[in-house]
Amino acid sequence: MSVSLEDARQRDRLDPLAGWKAHFELPEGVLYLDGNSLGAQPLAARQAVAGTLDQWRDELIGGWNQGWFDAPERLGRLLAPVLGAGEDEVLVTDNITLNLFKLLGYILGPGGESSQAGRGVVLSEGGNFPADGYIAEGFSHLAAHEHRVLPEGEPLESHLEGVDVVVLSQVNYRTGALRDMAATTRLVHDHGAEVIWDLAHSAGALPVALNACDVRYAVGCTYKYLNGGPGAPGFVHVRRDYQSRGWQPLSGWHGHAAPFAFAPDYAPAADLTRFRTGTHSALAYSALEASLAMWARVDMAALRDKSLALTELFRACLADVFAAHGIEDITPAPEARGSQVSLVAGEHGFAIVQALIARGVIGDYREPGLMRFGFAPLYLSHEDVWQAARHFREVVESGEYRAERFQVRSEVT
Amino acid sequence: MSVSLEDARQRDRLDPLAGWKAHFELPEGVLYLDGNSLGAQPLAARQAVAGTLDQWRDELIGGWNQGWFDAPERLGRLLAPVLGAGEDEVLVTDNITLNLFKLLGYILGPGGESSQAGRGVVLSEGGNFPADGYIAEGFSHLAAHEHRVLPEGEPLESHLEGVDVVVLSQVNYRTGALRDMAATTRLVHDHGAEVIWDLAHSAGALPVALNACDVRYAVGCTYKYLNGGPGAPGFVHVRRDYQSRGWQPLSGWHGHAAPFAFAPDYAPAADLTRFRTGTHSALAYSALEASLAMWARVDMAALRDKSLALTELFRACLADVFAAHGIEDITPAPEARGSQVSLVAGEHGFAIVQALIARGVIGDYREPGLMRFGFAPLYLSHEDVWQAARHFREVVESGEYRAERFQVRSEVT
Repeated sequence: MSVSLEDARQRDRLDPLAGWKAHFELPEGVLYLDGNSLGAQPLAARQAVAGTLDQWRDELIGGWNQGWFDAPERLGRLLAPVLGAGEDEVLVTDNITLNLFKLLGYILGPGGESSQAGRGVVLSEGGNFPADGYIAEGFSHLAAHEHRVLPEGEPLESHLEGVDVVVLSQVNYRTGALRDMAATTRLVHDHGAEVIWDLAHSAGALPVALNACDVRYAVGCTYKYLNGGPGAPGFVHVRRDYQSRGWQPLSGWHGHAAPFAFAPDYAPAADLTRFRTGTHSALAYSALEASLAMWARVDMAALRDKSLALTELFRACLADVFAAHGIEDITPAPEARGSQVSLVAGEHGFAIVQALIARGVIGDYREPGLMRFGFAPLYLSHEDVWQAARHFREVVESGEYRAERFQVRSEVT
Repeated sequence: MSVSLEDARQRDRLDPLAGWKAHFELPEGVLYLDGNSLGAQPLAARQAVAGTLDQWRDELIGGWNQGWFDAPERLGRLLAPVLGAGEDEVLVTDNITLNLFKLLGYILGPGGESSQAGRGVVLSEGGNFPADGYIAEGFSHLAAHEHRVLPEGEPLESHLEGVDVVVLSQVNYRTGALRDMAATTRLVHDHGAEVIWDLAHSAGALPVALNACDVRYAVGCTYKYLNGGPGAPGFVHVRRDYQSRGWQPLSGWHGHAAPFAFAPDYAPAADLTRFRTGTHSALAYSALEASLAMWARVDMAALRDKSLALTELFRACLADVFAAHGIEDITPAPEARGSQVSLVAGEHGFAIVQALIARGVIGDYREPGLMRFGFAPLYLSHEDVWQAARHFREVVESGEYRAERFQVRSEVT
């Protein structure tokens, strides 16, 4: 390969983030390049969850007074610096789908910033993770607004006419392409519209700079690069001066100004708390809190440097294999990339990923034809990446992926 | 007291459910009468959660193929018999607030059973847990429907004119009053309206008979009598023949007919799965599954007998104290009661509850003036209830609740 194993090891010796790997539980014999789907487990998660089980056993209902109830705000404060936001600008709650619905209602609904007497227009992105479009469709359908889709590959500026709210991902889940958040936010605002950023594939993958980019609204999840655990809670961001401008339509009692007064009428909390709905899982929040306490101490600039070094290393090791076997490397240029390598291998993509998994190299496959490899800088070493590339080379060059057992599609992934 | 300790112990010796207590983790020195707020911890919960942490560590993303993804349906099948529903009629997902919103949109929204070109009318209950009204208000506000409130104490039949959907609790969270589900459902249907039942204070408290009562729609939580853990997921019930009649407005990718096809357009799953939204917490579901596996084996008729025996025992032990100290016992007659005792003690209610908590007798207080004591038949013995009554008597008769420290209101409860 174009980089030697010794070179990779030397890079590990110079890596300022190398110490973080010891903070994770990683199974023997696995090279995990799927942290973009589900992040690995922080060592601290187990103890945190055990602590919450102890609280439940010993304090029973009293646990709600001892940290559970305020977890959405407390975890938001931990997460905020990772996103470049103020500490009262992030709330950890529900999931991306639900948080998008809330923001759409908050902006377009009665009393909102872009309150519409008639039809408002929501624009979501084609060619991106379709869930954001699904919920934009559900919202528009219910509230009698219009939902449009930006055709994949077409420039945003030519589709902003008449649009009120745009939902965009900072990093595309398939290609790993990174949008220019500052320029795009400016463009949308200049057209008199609002943009909601989906940070699913950027939070914890690179330094996000919400305030520096003048972002007003964002959502994201914490179970990918942020290592919060399977199905860990999502988050919602609203810039401070936009936090009391609208009605949050999923108006639950935890978002009430005085939830324990049990008042007959709904009165939203003055701040981001109004984006809470009902009772949340204390177990889920405790695992996430263990991870966010770690993330609050991560040097995000060093994280970005290492992310780019790892993705470049993988590509450099395999450039000749890609060329010889008709695999198209669609990974964007470094400055326009998240933290993943995206490869198109036509009909063989699925089987190659399966053959790699059989060797303990975990990437994933997304229809149609796409192999994705995510690089989580906190727990992947340069040597890990070198070894993963070696396996990839062997699987493809030997043709071992052609075995029958690698062609069988599983039901879910 | 009117019942002796020896009598209480004798009743425990004859109790067919006595063996269940050993399946729970209960702290030393605590008499827990707040299982109607947060249920005690099943012994099996800790091991189940540890198993999910192991899966996350060892299987990483593969865990989703090994039970996590199907948990909402699998847990729904476990829960269904406890609710008197068919096994494909219950889905465990999100929380009550969100599930109510989904059902309102499903029934009233475009394409729904009571689809409205103009304004539909939603009726919620005054004097009950206000969260159901809050979300009915949010829904109506966003979707341009009308939200009305049934004044507390007024008969439902005189407020059904022009109403499309009614949201009712089977058991009132304050008084413990049990509505006649069969008669009320018939009444609402006869008026051409739909009723959504909230089972928060009945699921696991008594035998619920959704199918026998001709119920079409219900929601509930699992963290009270069902012991699923703090903030455990909620559930939604839709009768089989009503499962593909409407659009679920919180249309997330897990509710898609083919979530992993990543199709650009939303197409709802044919069945109850369409009520799923986004990714759920595997940790939260594993604790709940441990509890539901237990509940699937509980004799619900015996549970009801014991529930009534325990509430009667508590009242009988204290009738003279209530009379002597101006405490009003508003607990309904046995056949019209959930599994709680409700007492009104005016200005002293809060302090009495605090003084009891200081003695390890956990009840709760709800504004204005209400003391609630919940009786979970699986882990409370007759002796426990007798001892709790003894403490109650001592606290009131000695006036120890008048101490300064019991007057301080905590922020959350």
